[in-house]
Amino acid sequence: MTQDFTIRTLGKCTVASPLILSKIEGDGIFDYIRDEERILYSTSLQKVQKDFENNDTPLSFERPGPKELLYFEPAKTKAAIVTCGGLCPGLNNVIRGLVTQLWKRYGVTKILGVQYGYAGLNPENQLPFIELNPDIVDDIHKTGGSMLGSSRGEQPASTIVDTLERHYINILFCVGGDGTLRGAHAIHEEIEKRGLKISIVGVPKTIDNDINFIEKSFGFESAFAEAQEIILHAHNEAKGAQNGVALIKLMGRDSGFIAANAALAVPDVNFVLIPEMDFCLDNPTTKNGFLNHLENRLRKKKHAVVVVAEGTGQYLFKNEKEIKDASGNTIHNDIGIFLKNKIKNYFSQKNMQISVKYIDPSYIIRSIPANANDSKFCAQLTHKAVHAAMAGRTDFLVGYWNSYFTLVPIPTATQKRKKIDIEEEFWWNVLESTGQAMHMK
Amino acid sequence: MTQDFTIRTLGKCTVASPLILSKIEGDGIFDYIRDEERILYSTSLQKVQKDFENNDTPLSFERPGPKELLYFEPAKTKAAIVTCGGLCPGLNNVIRGLVTQLWKRYGVTKILGVQYGYAGLNPENQLPFIELNPDIVDDIHKTGGSMLGSSRGEQPASTIVDTLERHYINILFCVGGDGTLRGAHAIHEEIEKRGLKISIVGVPKTIDNDINFIEKSFGFESAFAEAQEIILHAHNEAKGAQNGVALIKLMGRDSGFIAANAALAVPDVNFVLIPEMDFCLDNPTTKNGFLNHLENRLRKKKHAVVVVAEGTGQYLFKNEKEIKDASGNTIHNDIGIFLKNKIKNYFSQKNMQISVKYIDPSYIIRSIPANANDSKFCAQLTHKAVHAAMAGRTDFLVGYWNSYFTLVPIPTATQKRKKIDIEEEFWWNVLESTGQAMHMK
Amino acid sequence: MTQDFTIRTLGKCTVASPLILSKIEGDGIFDYIRDEERILYSTSLQKVQKDFENNDTPLSFERPGPKELLYFEPAKTKAAIVTCGGLCPGLNNVIRGLVTQLWKRYGVTKILGVQYGYAGLNPENQLPFIELNPDIVDDIHKTGGSMLGSSRGEQPASTIVDTLERHYINILFCVGGDGTLRGAHAIHEEIEKRGLKISIVGVPKTIDNDINFIEKSFGFESAFAEAQEIILHAHNEAKGAQNGVALIKLMGRDSGFIAANAALAVPDVNFVLIPEMDFCLDNPTTKNGFLNHLENRLRKKKHAVVVVAEGTGQYLFKNEKEIKDASGNTIHNDIGIFLKNKIKNYFSQKNMQISVKYIDPSYIIRSIPANANDSKFCAQLTHKAVHAAMAGRTDFLVGYWNSYFTLVPIPTATQKRKKIDIEEEFWWNVLESTGQAMHMK
Amino acid sequence: MTQDFTIRTLGKCTVASPLILSKIEGDGIFDYIRDEERILYSTSLQKVQKDFENNDTPLSFERPGPKELLYFEPAKTKAAIVTCGGLCPGLNNVIRGLVTQLWKRYGVTKILGVQYGYAGLNPENQLPFIELNPDIVDDIHKTGGSMLGSSRGEQPASTIVDTLERHYINILFCVGGDGTLRGAHAIHEEIEKRGLKISIVGVPKTIDNDINFIEKSFGFESAFAEAQEIILHAHNEAKGAQNGVALIKLMGRDSGFIAANAALAVPDVNFVLIPEMDFCLDNPTTKNGFLNHLENRLRKKKHAVVVVAEGTGQYLFKNEKEIKDASGNTIHNDIGIFLKNKIKNYFSQKNMQISVKYIDPSYIIRSIPANANDSKFCAQLTHKAVHAAMAGRTDFLVGYWNSYFTLVPIPTATQKRKKIDIEEEFWWNVLESTGQAMHMK
Repeated sequence: MTQDFTIRTLGKCTVASPLILSKIEGDGIFDYIRDEERILYSTSLQKVQKDFENNDTPLSFERPGPKELLYFEPAKTKAAIVTCGGLCPGLNNVIRGLVTQLWKRYGVTKILGVQYGYAGLNPENQLPFIELNPDIVDDIHKTGGSMLGSSRGEQPASTIVDTLERHYINILFCVGGDGTLRGAHAIHEEIEKRGLKISIVGVPKTIDNDINFIEKSFGFESAFAEAQEIILHAHNEAKGAQNGVALIKLMGRDSGFIAANAALAVPDVNFVLIPEMDFCLDNPTTKNGFLNHLENRLRKKKHAVVVVAEGTGQYLFKNEKEIKDASGNTIHNDIGIFLKNKIKNYFSQKNMQISVKYIDPSYIIRSIPANANDSKFCAQLTHKAVHAAMAGRTDFLVGYWNSYFTLVPIPTATQKRKKIDIEEEFWWNVLESTGQAMHMK
Repeated sequence: MTQDFTIRTLGKCTVASPLILSKIEGDGIFDYIRDEERILYSTSLQKVQKDFENNDTPLSFERPGPKELLYFEPAKTKAAIVTCGGLCPGLNNVIRGLVTQLWKRYGVTKILGVQYGYAGLNPENQLPFIELNPDIVDDIHKTGGSMLGSSRGEQPASTIVDTLERHYINILFCVGGDGTLRGAHAIHEEIEKRGLKISIVGVPKTIDNDINFIEKSFGFESAFAEAQEIILHAHNEAKGAQNGVALIKLMGRDSGFIAANAALAVPDVNFVLIPEMDFCLDNPTTKNGFLNHLENRLRKKKHAVVVVAEGTGQYLFKNEKEIKDASGNTIHNDIGIFLKNKIKNYFSQKNMQISVKYIDPSYIIRSIPANANDSKFCAQLTHKAVHAAMAGRTDFLVGYWNSYFTLVPIPTATQKRKKIDIEEEFWWNVLESTGQAMHMK
Repeated sequence: MTQDFTIRTLGKCTVASPLILSKIEGDGIFDYIRDEERILYSTSLQKVQKDFENNDTPLSFERPGPKELLYFEPAKTKAAIVTCGGLCPGLNNVIRGLVTQLWKRYGVTKILGVQYGYAGLNPENQLPFIELNPDIVDDIHKTGGSMLGSSRGEQPASTIVDTLERHYINILFCVGGDGTLRGAHAIHEEIEKRGLKISIVGVPKTIDNDINFIEKSFGFESAFAEAQEIILHAHNEAKGAQNGVALIKLMGRDSGFIAANAALAVPDVNFVLIPEMDFCLDNPTTKNGFLNHLENRLRKKKHAVVVVAEGTGQYLFKNEKEIKDASGNTIHNDIGIFLKNKIKNYFSQKNMQISVKYIDPSYIIRSIPANANDSKFCAQLTHKAVHAAMAGRTDFLVGYWNSYFTLVPIPTATQKRKKIDIEEEFWWNVLESTGQAMHMK
Repeated sequence: MTQDFTIRTLGKCTVASPLILSKIEGDGIFDYIRDEERILYSTSLQKVQKDFENNDTPLSFERPGPKELLYFEPAKTKAAIVTCGGLCPGLNNVIRGLVTQLWKRYGVTKILGVQYGYAGLNPENQLPFIELNPDIVDDIHKTGGSMLGSSRGEQPASTIVDTLERHYINILFCVGGDGTLRGAHAIHEEIEKRGLKISIVGVPKTIDNDINFIEKSFGFESAFAEAQEIILHAHNEAKGAQNGVALIKLMGRDSGFIAANAALAVPDVNFVLIPEMDFCLDNPTTKNGFLNHLENRLRKKKHAVVVVAEGTGQYLFKNEKEIKDASGNTIHNDIGIFLKNKIKNYFSQKNMQISVKYIDPSYIIRSIPANANDSKFCAQLTHKAVHAAMAGRTDFLVGYWNSYFTLVPIPTATQKRKKIDIEEEFWWNVLESTGQAMHMK
């Protein structure tokens, strides 16, 4: 994996910023961010020290913030905002933050809202732009969802760039996840091919929190907070019956961040199962399978709480027959329902009476408004996105790493998805909390 | 249906109440409730007038409350509490309310908690009683679930009465729904057969709010409030996609009270489907089927919110094949998943691109703590249950009708389940709110 | 007190309702409400029986609902909505409910929103009307407050009627409390004097729930639910310190409904003090003053929770000196701060170390959105207000009594304020819950 | 300021850890933390680079975590937990986390809970220890407050060490703020003087988030989240009246972290006033005082939201007369009430009618349970506290810096309080959000 952390720019910055900040330390006024300011990738003294000893410069990210000189002249700048993919708490805060920062801090008053994701940039779909201003977005942060609507799926980059050209758009803010950001990069490449001066800004959105080089993305905390509430109450279901098992399936296709964070937040969770781990269900020999441990737990405490991420244990299905529903559609293997049945069958064979309560909150955890910390995060995130865009940065996204906001080239962030490293501290912290076996095999 | 509203008693009340109340109006002290105080069943002036003109006494309920003379002597009384069936917000408030009222107001200090429903009254299950007192229950109202645990299913009445006799229990509070209350009546009959003086008190619990002669049962408001939250956010999912349909399945096996009340509370709901209504899915002739109306809504507004109670439209399944899961278990027909597929297929045949977001909160709405109004209700309900029990009433439950608490004989309340009458005002109010067609056929 | 429950009408109804309802029982379609349908005031069998025996007709309210014939022709009707007085949860639900019922059910499409209360009906204030329609009000129920703004204070009835005439307004919905409703009646009298055909509709709003003949008004449950949350957490403050006293002041100028209901909802409350009760602070002789009881509680349990309504115990201040603040303004005597100081001084004189945590949530409990039950209530309430208005009723408000909506003449409802009768059951229920002495004197 | 980041230890670690972790990278098992692992203080590439160029080692913190060898033998170890100072969300999570980590991970089963802060370590106060175990703490995280109670104030270090000796306590976890931690250091010094081997562990608790070298302390996010809710609704009060001003006072004696973070989380805030800033109220010349800006805002937008931290602008009071209440107690100058009056007087002199709604949530924001992110934080924090204690570290606290947990010597952390640097990025982010003037003078 090449880790290129250099941010592309559209050209030289020559326009004085309307933000009257300082270049002097100690005058009580925030200083413009200088281009050379960078945030270290590693905070380990040993790692950084070793780099310097080897005459390597440690990995680092460009630090975003207000610049003394801009690339775009605010009065002549036109921006557009598009939100793509599934809903995520904070989308409306992001739209509101971008609009107010552009309008009130920089004086950019031509701002277009694109309807229903990239589809809204393809004229075939006949989705008119929404003209955005501070009044229109004034109250939207109080509601979940996206005021612009969203959609999945791609549109041809050339069509989108045609649209950007036709509407004289200078900056396009693409709010979305992995696929959206790859799409944004393709748009950037088409722009570059045509020699245009349009900035493509990625605002990373992933409810699974699985974008690389991004410690946390907006909405993730709100989502696992909602999951926490559900698990706290599910605990009542588990305790409400003899040998009660509350089984909660949470989002997380390729990574278990929501499940693992929710488990850390609710000490009542006894088992958390995530895509990053291999485990066996029932190992009669070692007694070290998940169901064996669940049996021990029930025999000892009479109830258990199990959290499973949706992408967990896909290998467990390989021997399962395809099931079809009434209309002939294949019912996809669902780890939640699969586990529910496996648990029931296991204890039924043992003649042990149990009661499984299966809970699948699905969209419930993603359609809520952003909580306080995410709202704050969205405010800061969007301010930085606008600063970088106005300074002519392009093909980047605004990241967050070691408590600092950063700039990351889109191709670098989308090379692969972030996952929980089960050898690293975070997963160990989860195990400390649940008390489950390190490996269930 | 015989509507016998006479409450049975164990015998003559001769013990002075420790509650020092009044028998004089206007002295600023609440008056003991006299045996003849009754609450009218109907509040319609016309109906009541007609009864009197026909020399009939209008239907009425006994009014519960503190009595001047008690049947049981507090110092010698032993009470037990059992919670049965599915969880419901407020169970812990009920347990707490019964314990504190018995202990602090009446001085009854022998109170047993039965574990895991009626199972805990069958010695075979080896579930010891929990000794209850105000300290043990002090904080339980802050948590959902039941501190005693619960279970479904019956135990032989004779075994239960053996247990009551063996433990010298004078009053058994049975907190549960239809089945539990029928069980309580069977226990009462066994007690009567044996000539014992044990009071059987029903505390009606039904998250579906479908017990007859009971306007509202505890926990119901909390449950539909939780449903409201989920629907409010589901609305964001509907609006977040082109032709987005949020489809939410709510509890309600035989009646649609949760679905209908939630729909009244969220004006964003466009269609609510309940077991009490007949409807057709797609009527190409009249264009008056549910899917036809859904199509109109989407063409006009581009999104829709649909709420369906779980027991709705069972007749729609009659032509469906049985489906089996991987383990060979029959997958029961689920109206939510059925509708999701029908909606998808309908619009797919019309080449109309839609996006269905299916949400099934299941246990999420019943494992929460009671909200404020339910907490208040539980306090009042349990106070009345204790007053009536101490006065030797038996085979009754504490009801609520026209804003007053009442006493209802258990057999009368369990003759049939309460349902929404689609010709009555409540359902009309729902239709006024959703704007859906009166009949979709 | 004359209890005239006859609703005035503008004239004969001759316009066919656009609502296609039924007049036949048993056809599965809701029936139009007939003019003679009435709801009994009392649900006591004995009281009603006695009335009939004396050949009196028992007190009753007109039942609101859709009528077969209307007074106003929808296409020609213009309505206006004004919200007055302090905020209350549900104001936006009321505005939304009126607008959608008028527009979608009746086809009334000329609806004006009056800004900032009655002030907006006085041209001097130059507050233009807001044109209301279903789109504008679509999302407002998700937010507390009033989208129209509000204000206290009167405007000359003649000026207001001039405005109504000038704008051809046929129906004015006045959402407000006691003062607002008296104002509405004055407007009605001016209208009558001029021989106009304008319907004046009161929608009762009182966070104190103290309007006469109205069991509960919208927003009240949301308010005491918010109070419940605050008290539940205040309990932690009380328990967090040795001899911790959490003292919470709640709204309630003339009546203690919020305080008493919140106390019933939170069994952790040990004392609730309301305007309707007389009590003495410290009675060294009887040991029956509030502070004497508080001392007992602390000695026994080491913590206490006290709830006081703001209008409580005004007679206690009569010997207090006036206090002025830095600007020379009189600091009004505040029962919360007064009690805090009295508690501190009492225990300081006893050399007993205590810790008082004083909490005054003030506006916090009234600026929130309506909860689920209030939202449902607002929907039903506004539907009925519109039905009655379209049928030419005037000078009335929509009440709620014994679980039914009613119509009440404004002068009857505003003759005096509703209060808690400390001899009646509700207050006794509160005492059962807190366990405080019946009288502290 | 000396910045000594070396953590003291009680002696050589010789006991094998019961945690079976790894020393090999890549085996899928978390590795023991080596003593030399350290976290950089600065993440600025430039600053760190400059240090290395100057042959300085950059500032860094010891990294906490499980060690291969322990100082204390678990079976013989006795721990005690004390919670001091004001309540803070998460106290119960901390108690629960310490107990379960000690008991379940390390096998330490002698754990004492100290009642009511340091007072519980002074035998004079006759406060018996509470024996703690996983069952007792099982549900406490669901409730705010501290199950142990708390108190302010010191006790003689020698008395406390006498108690520790008398009860053979090996580890004392002191959960508290600045004063508590200074107290902990004094205890440590007394222990050292006596040559004892007792570990003193600080768990930093500050609702103001103002402990030095600690990026965030537990409960802080929950507190500003509660503040966010209150401000969001206060916004409704501001908009509900003509020229409505919602003025919210939040905690923050010496620093404005809660106020500033809440303002970032609620974009509706127009002005935030904190102790770290100097501002003038009314400057008729420059028109750059707070009240001048407030006037502009009201003239333009008709409403405003103002947040003020309680410790703000103490210099403004210097000319105020002392006010005494009815009992002769001095009423302390309160910036909230002071501002409310100043705002009223200013606009009254300008004959501009406004409406100020003053909200002081006081204890409401600190007595709630921890939210999800704080709950997770408490779990990780307490795990690390236990690891470090078992490894014989003493006189330290567990910090958090740049997204990593750290160890900080107590004297270093308590040298001075953390404040918002108004020249740094965080305050600028707040200004970007509120849009208020950089300096109001």
